[in-house]
Amino acid sequence: MSVTKAQGFRAAGVTAGLKVSGKSDFALVVNDGPLHSAAAVFTSNRVAAAPVHWTRTAVGDGRLDAVVLNSGGANACTGVEGFQNTHTTADKVADVLGLSAGDVAVCSTGLIGEQLPMAKILHGVEMAAAALVADGGTAAATAIMTTDSVAKEASWTSQPGADGTSYTIGGMAKGAGMLAPGLATMLVVITTDAVVEAEGLDAALRDAVKVTFNRADSDGCMSTNDTVLLLASGAGAVFPDMDEFTAGLTQVCAQLARALIADAEGANHDIAITTVNADSERDAEIVSRSVARSNLFKCAIFGNDPNWGRVLSAVGTTDAIFDPNEINVSINGVQICRKGGIGDSRELVDLSAREVTVEIDLRAGDTSATIWTNDLTHAYVEENSAYSS
Amino acid sequence: MSVTKAQGFRAAGVTAGLKVSGKSDFALVVNDGPLHSAAAVFTSNRVAAAPVHWTRTAVGDGRLDAVVLNSGGANACTGVEGFQNTHTTADKVADVLGLSAGDVAVCSTGLIGEQLPMAKILHGVEMAAAALVADGGTAAATAIMTTDSVAKEASWTSQPGADGTSYTIGGMAKGAGMLAPGLATMLVVITTDAVVEAEGLDAALRDAVKVTFNRADSDGCMSTNDTVLLLASGAGAVFPDMDEFTAGLTQVCAQLARALIADAEGANHDIAITTVNADSERDAEIVSRSVARSNLFKCAIFGNDPNWGRVLSAVGTTDAIFDPNEINVSINGVQICRKGGIGDSRELVDLSAREVTVEIDLRAGDTSATIWTNDLTHAYVEENSAYSS
Repeated sequence: MSVTKAQGFRAAGVTAGLKVSGKSDFALVVNDGPLHSAAAVFTSNRVAAAPVHWTRTAVGDGRLDAVVLNSGGANACTGVEGFQNTHTTADKVADVLGLSAGDVAVCSTGLIGEQLPMAKILHGVEMAAAALVADGGTAAATAIMTTDSVAKEASWTSQPGADGTSYTIGGMAKGAGMLAPGLATMLVVITTDAVVEAEGLDAALRDAVKVTFNRADSDGCMSTNDTVLLLASGAGAVFPDMDEFTAGLTQVCAQLARALIADAEGANHDIAITTVNADSERDAEIVSRSVARSNLFKCAIFGNDPNWGRVLSAVGTTDAIFDPNEINVSINGVQICRKGGIGDSRELVDLSAREVTVEIDLRAGDTSATIWTNDLTHAYVEENSAYSS
Repeated sequence: MSVTKAQGFRAAGVTAGLKVSGKSDFALVVNDGPLHSAAAVFTSNRVAAAPVHWTRTAVGDGRLDAVVLNSGGANACTGVEGFQNTHTTADKVADVLGLSAGDVAVCSTGLIGEQLPMAKILHGVEMAAAALVADGGTAAATAIMTTDSVAKEASWTSQPGADGTSYTIGGMAKGAGMLAPGLATMLVVITTDAVVEAEGLDAALRDAVKVTFNRADSDGCMSTNDTVLLLASGAGAVFPDMDEFTAGLTQVCAQLARALIADAEGANHDIAITTVNADSERDAEIVSRSVARSNLFKCAIFGNDPNWGRVLSAVGTTDAIFDPNEINVSINGVQICRKGGIGDSRELVDLSAREVTVEIDLRAGDTSATIWTNDLTHAYVEENSAYSS
């Protein structure tokens, strides 16, 4: 169930003193090989944090030997000094573990615009290196939590092949549904013991992220630090079928993405907005996302109000192909809007459960897509206004 | 100060019984000529309400004789019956006032997806017609209020020309900063006694709306009913210089737009986000709007927290021309972000006043634009979740 479930990885989570709470706040994941291939995707935010710039370069040659992660500071908008601090952190990891700094990924999360306490960070590297163990996945997943209420882990193992061998993909994630402070930096580390070179990892990761993490949209805000890393150790000596590998990876990413939404700070409802019968996947996605980003809709769901007018008004702002007089909308299975007008009674919709499903039928094609989001609550406002984060 | 300040107009506001509160809820504005030219802009939402469809057609020939407005129901997503109800309302106004129904604009605001109580509407037409007076502007402005806390009016009078004559532009608006229930339909009626044909009105109105109402963005949600109407009576017999007319009209629109933001339901702060030194007006506008639509930024301002990281992370999602390492950000005059990094101390920023100014200096050109928005508060969530609207 974790980043160390696949063979060939060790991990650790320790307390470097970055969190005022005194909880663990520093993690390290090491790939012991024999393979060290890696791929990554990063935030598309043009104001990217120093560790994102560093790690993008580090993974450029398709190799990573270790990943070091800290909470307590995003190291974003910190200028030359901030980049130097990331560099120094990678140097320290390389020094302690006998690696090249260029093969060390760095991930940070926390408040933007503050320099990291480097003495604590460097001491954290020493402690984490000393604590590395083959079953350290959960300790690492716990150490990267910020406002997360639970550590987030997932794994998948292939069916045994003709020769009886199988391979595993496991991962950890932090981020409270993008609803958390610090823009809820989403940090994800996924490992596998399959033998896959960097190019194959990259293609599989992009496919998987597109339909999982990129479709979790809790509050429309994009972090400066989002990072998803995929590392292969090859320790299982299995050469996977890449379609199967991608399907397994997508399953792990989907589990982690759902865990982020389910743990969204301040949310009372998890909402799956599915657009069906769209002309294209792009249409289905933008229609679902426009509803997911409507504050009025999200407040209505918080109020257990099946306010379908707010769904239609959000759909109406998109350029997707549809006829406003043909759209059907169902909330929790009740078709409250039929052909763009009044359908079944709002009274029939029960919104008392945490999970809410919204289905928008565009009647314009045969493609569908789901965006996961949360409701907009008092706790969200409280969480994001009560203190600087 | 009102829709009847210009000569040639009468107005009324009456109680048709649409509001549970028993307050006035039905308004009528009549252009007595001699000119009856008109122009309009509407919501760009593709799910537009029946009265929007009706009025777009009615104003198509550049002539309007009367505007009838109701609260208590948006008449949106109401199908054929909804459109028929709008038609019937216009017929009734035409019948009572001796006009052609095709010259009567209809505006509605309220909950989407419910049919209007037509008996009350038709009785309202009779009452309002009987109540028409030359100083009825304020009564009309009051009758179109929904969750607005004050009636919104504005006017402007030109400097006397060489012959001592001048002309007036006056208007009224409803909508609580787009934060109100019913998606805060923004209804605006502006009148003038200048002699301007429909084509001139249309050009001036589009210019004015672009930099006023279109730059007020309280919560990013777009109503199905937004309508801005401009009617000219020609009763002042002044042929204006069109640049001057457009400037005066822009001033009236700006006053009304500011009044909408200032009255935003649940808001604690009015925020002016100005992007300066942009490469183009389009860049300046999208950068300001991206910040105006960041829930995290809006929560921070509610918490009196000058969280500039949330400004930069929103700017970073745009494709405007800028170098992340060159951006400066000031909040209430304190440059807390300099060259994309840490600037003056956050402690120096005083956010206790209602008005907040954010200046984003892209250092990429010489164009600027301002978007007005509000903070995201507990009262916003309460207002939009506590009851169906």
